[in-house]
Amino acid sequence: MKIILLLFILATSIATSHGLDLDHGIDYNILPLRLKSGSGGHYIKGITCSSWRLGVEAHNIIDWKTIPQECEDYVGNYILGEQYRADSKAVISEAYLYAKSLNLTKDGKNIWVFDIDETSLSNLQYYANHGFGVEPFNATAFNEWVELGEAPALPESKKLYKKLLSLGIKIAFLTGRSESQRDITAKNLKDAGYYKYEKLVVKDTVKYKGKTAVTYKSAEREKLEQEGYRIIGNIGDQWSDILGTNTGNRTFKLPDPLYYIA
Amino acid sequence: MKIILLLFILATSIATSHGLDLDHGIDYNILPLRLKSGSGGHYIKGITCSSWRLGVEAHNIIDWKTIPQECEDYVGNYILGEQYRADSKAVISEAYLYAKSLNLTKDGKNIWVFDIDETSLSNLQYYANHGFGVEPFNATAFNEWVELGEAPALPESKKLYKKLLSLGIKIAFLTGRSESQRDITAKNLKDAGYYKYEKLVVKDTVKYKGKTAVTYKSAEREKLEQEGYRIIGNIGDQWSDILGTNTGNRTFKLPDPLYYIA
Repeated sequence: MKIILLLFILATSIATSHGLDLDHGIDYNILPLRLKSGSGGHYIKGITCSSWRLGVEAHNIIDWKTIPQECEDYVGNYILGEQYRADSKAVISEAYLYAKSLNLTKDGKNIWVFDIDETSLSNLQYYANHGFGVEPFNATAFNEWVELGEAPALPESKKLYKKLLSLGIKIAFLTGRSESQRDITAKNLKDAGYYKYEKLVVKDTVKYKGKTAVTYKSAEREKLEQEGYRIIGNIGDQWSDILGTNTGNRTFKLPDPLYYIA
Repeated sequence: MKIILLLFILATSIATSHGLDLDHGIDYNILPLRLKSGSGGHYIKGITCSSWRLGVEAHNIIDWKTIPQECEDYVGNYILGEQYRADSKAVISEAYLYAKSLNLTKDGKNIWVFDIDETSLSNLQYYANHGFGVEPFNATAFNEWVELGEAPALPESKKLYKKLLSLGIKIAFLTGRSESQRDITAKNLKDAGYYKYEKLVVKDTVKYKGKTAVTYKSAEREKLEQEGYRIIGNIGDQWSDILGTNTGNRTFKLPDPLYYIA
């Protein structure tokens, strides 16, 4: 059995190395490729990191501050590997099938809400340097990264964005980024290929001080509807992007095992 | 590379065979153990069965009638293997941590809603004989299986049930099974170890004819609240168990890649 296990580990490592898709349109030069062994890691007795991730995606595991320490390698492997891209693709594919199936009134009032971080733009370079979510969130360091304006597009999300535009659907970006980050965010979006949109809603940090993302985003979506838009779709990587009120006719949850926003 | 791939497949097969946990307290004699190769199967170009399953659990992929044909082996492997049990355990563990953290009023009005099929009782024997969800739902055949009253408990769910009772929380079963199936369901629950509960709510098929499960279950949960119960938790394998109104203070979604109920 020991020999078989050894063969298994060896072969798994090689196969994983072969299967890693680092292309995603993202520059991973900053991250030396370490082959990590954590894919079967357990975070608490009897519960694997894979079950933890599913629990997060299905909104069973909530209000966590950092990923489980023992899942750092697992999450790193997932997010840099094929599965993250494949899981995103499945969501985007479903979203497009839905959008295409609609018989839309052509009055220019159909809008689709996109979250930004880990939905439209990827902060993977930042998180790769910060333990894939194992470190507590550091606002100062993260804001420095945002100010660089170098976050690449998430390739599957950008495909959806383009297809929605071609269907005549307008785009509203709705983000927890603050008013002071509006300009760099607009520039970053443009550089990443999101050149055309109806709205870029950033957070008024005075008005929404102490409020949850659910409260803030619900209120801003309500405003959109009051302006006459019909929110026909809503996509984010956090449940707080798609819960609350005025959520839109259909919501989509992209994978994100890196952090949790209430 | 070919030799390595062969080693990988061989070692994976052995490891999987070694790791399969068919114990779950369920009798699988009816199903000869076939080692299936479908775990990497694709259901549409570029989308794996694994991404399909995640999409289902995260409520991105909805309103499906059968599982993708190409995912039969994948779903069979999942549901008979370790991962289904592990994924269930992660949900149950989270539910128990939540329940234990509550500071409950001891007035006997705290209630936890359990769905029955694939939440409290397992119909895996039935689905193993019907292509793991690849066959369209056959009400006649399924009702015959229900009438046998032989569905075993889902072991992780039963653990939660027992722990909730020990915390002084009452249990309400709320199921899409019909009034005509009440007696056999009550007997089956008792035989499976669910001996004590406050309510067994079955569906009035006249009153709720043509209504969705979301509508039916929301209305019945509202009744519970009108009777003075506080729904402190709500667990099911379908999103329709936990969406709608009066959903309870916190909801939990158990894995189920076999079927979808709107």
